[in-house]
Amino acid sequence: MTSATFLFSPVEADLQILSENLIQLVGTRHPKLFAAAKHLFGAGGKRLRPAIVLLVSRATMLDEDITLRHRRLAEITEMIHTASLIHDDVVDESAMRRGVPTIHSLFGNGVAVLAGDFFFAQSSWYLANLDNLEVVKLLSEVIMDFAAGEIQQGDTLFNTSLSIEAYLKKSYYKTATLFANSCKAAGVLSGVSNEVAEHLYCYGRDIGLAFQIVDDIFDFTGSADVLGKPAGSDLKSGNLTAPVLFALAEKPYLEVLIEREFAQKGDLEQAIALIQDSKGLEQARELAKQHATQAVEHLNVLPPSESRQALINMADYVLTRLY
Amino acid sequence: MTSATFLFSPVEADLQILSENLIQLVGTRHPKLFAAAKHLFGAGGKRLRPAIVLLVSRATMLDEDITLRHRRLAEITEMIHTASLIHDDVVDESAMRRGVPTIHSLFGNGVAVLAGDFFFAQSSWYLANLDNLEVVKLLSEVIMDFAAGEIQQGDTLFNTSLSIEAYLKKSYYKTATLFANSCKAAGVLSGVSNEVAEHLYCYGRDIGLAFQIVDDIFDFTGSADVLGKPAGSDLKSGNLTAPVLFALAEKPYLEVLIEREFAQKGDLEQAIALIQDSKGLEQARELAKQHATQAVEHLNVLPPSESRQALINMADYVLTRLY
Repeated sequence: MTSATFLFSPVEADLQILSENLIQLVGTRHPKLFAAAKHLFGAGGKRLRPAIVLLVSRATMLDEDITLRHRRLAEITEMIHTASLIHDDVVDESAMRRGVPTIHSLFGNGVAVLAGDFFFAQSSWYLANLDNLEVVKLLSEVIMDFAAGEIQQGDTLFNTSLSIEAYLKKSYYKTATLFANSCKAAGVLSGVSNEVAEHLYCYGRDIGLAFQIVDDIFDFTGSADVLGKPAGSDLKSGNLTAPVLFALAEKPYLEVLIEREFAQKGDLEQAIALIQDSKGLEQARELAKQHATQAVEHLNVLPPSESRQALINMADYVLTRLY
Repeated sequence: MTSATFLFSPVEADLQILSENLIQLVGTRHPKLFAAAKHLFGAGGKRLRPAIVLLVSRATMLDEDITLRHRRLAEITEMIHTASLIHDDVVDESAMRRGVPTIHSLFGNGVAVLAGDFFFAQSSWYLANLDNLEVVKLLSEVIMDFAAGEIQQGDTLFNTSLSIEAYLKKSYYKTATLFANSCKAAGVLSGVSNEVAEHLYCYGRDIGLAFQIVDDIFDFTGSADVLGKPAGSDLKSGNLTAPVLFALAEKPYLEVLIEREFAQKGDLEQAIALIQDSKGLEQARELAKQHATQAVEHLNVLPPSESRQALINMADYVLTRLY
């Protein structure tokens, strides 16, 4: 099994700098935010998004060192991600995240809304100061996708006729857009051609989709300890993911349980059992593998390097989390 | 008395286009947002901010017509303002705004957080697509000031040692930053010199401060009908404004009432009576006048025009709201 630490080795020093910078960047303007930042950025986050940005930066810069703007982009990526988590937890009323209490459950809705706004605002500001309009456009697209995606997700809750295509689109807005646009932005900062930039976008998109599908599988296979939240949480809230949609084709009674929104005692447990008994989890694994494989193919445009190899291994890593 | 409608006459047609565009811009991506947008943008907002942006645009373009980018800037200004109102109402748990129910009281915290995020995100996106990095920087500064300002305000609640300088700084972050930076941005889009751009910034800042001070006076002189919320609301929540800070120097007992956070029955009513009996309201009016006068002086750098005259009259209008 590939460990994340080993995988990130070409950018280990970069990630160390990033962690220190993030707390400083976010905290300088206000001590309360400094506390929130330490709470958030120290809470065992995997740093997957900035690691990928830094690896793409190194893989596209080759002999030359990555610039301060590449580093800033990685920091912005993690800031946008964190801001969206804080607001998502308010919207979903989640009490726990990564096994620690959420900002809104610790400090209330008001502080959570403001902290999220501040992180979004600060990322927009740092973004503008990268002095590259294309990069500003790419990342502001992400922030818009996040908000539109959450609203769309709210609209399709308990909708058993959701297609796999619609699920993938939802997953793009929710997760993959940040991977896709930040990978492309790292390439743009390195001055790659439009063609290479598009491949970087596709790499990010497919890795992001694979990552989200694997996360959705975990909702049924992970323990509450590992998840940091109860198993079946997404299903309970009506967020229908790949394993559920595949299982629906095989287990008609699942549709009944979902459409009555698990109103009767034991409905949720029965639904989870039906999904686990179906081929849904295996089919979802296949879908994740497809996207991971496609992701790797997009790296063929890059010259070989230690960082490119780490990006290739990243696809395996995303999948190894499955077993 | 100068009416807003008369004042806006040079940009009346522009404001009509703006209203139609705003609902379209915000609503295209999602029907639920379209409904929220109609609710918000139709709720009797004064359109003061976009009107000023449009007037600055016309005053700096003179013979030439204003561009689509000037119009878009005015729309972005109103979008940022609206997004901040939606989130403020969640933070302050306000049930009413401009006499109509707030988004969070109608649709819940979740929808309010998402709608605010979406409007902020969309304004960032439209901003990036203005293709002018300086303008992106100016307006992303505003979004950051708003978030930092709200957090700071939360920190100084019931703090009777707040100085007038600190109050003005708070009012800048909360209100004047949007006026200041959007006026400057309109000038930048017209290609004015740095010197003129700075004067436009100062005009916006001083008009914005005068506007906020007048609003804070209303909290004590307006009726619940006009305010769309109960009188003394700010004071009750511990947000100490100009009339209160001036009155504190004159009425020592006010400090006692505020510092015990109006814990005893009749405390709030007594505090309001003390403020109304003091010179605080008159001193606050003087402060508003000072800023309105300063604002007008900054317009001397612009050549005479109907729009410049409307900007001068705007300063009077902000003050006439006082009587």
